[in-house]
Parts: sequence; C-alpha cells; structure tokens
Amino acid sequence: MAPNHCNFCHAPNFAGQEQIPRLAGQREDYLLKALRDYKPGARPGYEPTMANVVQPMKDEDFVELAYYLARVK
Amino acid sequence: MAPNHCNFCHAPNFAGQEQIPRLAGQREDYLLKALRDYKPGARPGYEPTMANVVQPMKDEDFVELAYYLARVK
Repeated sequence: MAPNHCNFCHAPNFAGQEQIPRLAGQREDYLLKALRDYKPGARPGYEPTMANVVQPMKDEDFVELAYYLARVK
Repeated sequence: MAPNHCNFCHAPNFAGQEQIPRLAGQREDYLLKALRDYKPGARPGYEPTMANVVQPMKDEDFVELAYYLARVK
C-alpha cells in the first residue's frame, strides 16, 4: 500500500484521523465505487486530494485496494 | 436510532450493504462532519437521500448520532 500513500492521511492502520474516514473494514463495494468515482470527478471530495491521488491508478488497482482495505482489521 | 431509519439502508447492524457504507465503528469526527455537511448540501451524496433525511434533524441530533455510531461494534 505504501506506493499509494493512503496511510499518510488515513493513518498507518487505516483507522483514519480527525475528519478523515476509517477505511479498514469498510465495505469493499463502497470503497471500490468511491475510488472509481473519484477519478472522473463523479464523487466530489471535500478537497481535491483524492481526485489527484487516483489519477495515475488503474481500475485493477482500485479493485485490489478495495479488496485489501475491506479486510484490514 | 429507529426514528432516523438509518438501518433501512445501512443495515440493522450499521455494517452497510452493497455500495452503502459501513457506519459502525467509523470515526466520530468524520460522521459528524458528514451529517452536518449533508444538511446545507455542502456534502453532495450520490443521491439526495441523505440530504433529505437530515433536514428535520438538529445539530444535537448529529452529535448524538455520530457518538453512537462510532461506538457500535
């Protein structure tokens, strides 16, 4: 996960911090939809961070990431 | 929680379903910001459901709800 730097904002254990959501244990379907929708801007975030982060990512990356995060304890 | 009907979409245990997110155990700060931002439309949802649901709610309801959901196991 390191290359995606998710843990920079969402904390090393993906539990989130302050107003940044917990990703660990979130629903895989929801995570995947969110990741996919950030890329074309269909999902507006509070700030452009997520839209920027996902730009270089491919759909297979989203699938793997959602699978992983949904299973982090 | 019954009056708010959160469990209708987010499931009785607030674990979410399909592309609807898990609320149980989510960060309190994040839940509170989301609830507050849905009301004036500052947080756009995928559909107007959440904006509609929160209209009759007061800020103290948001505080109580975020507190509760963050602690549901």
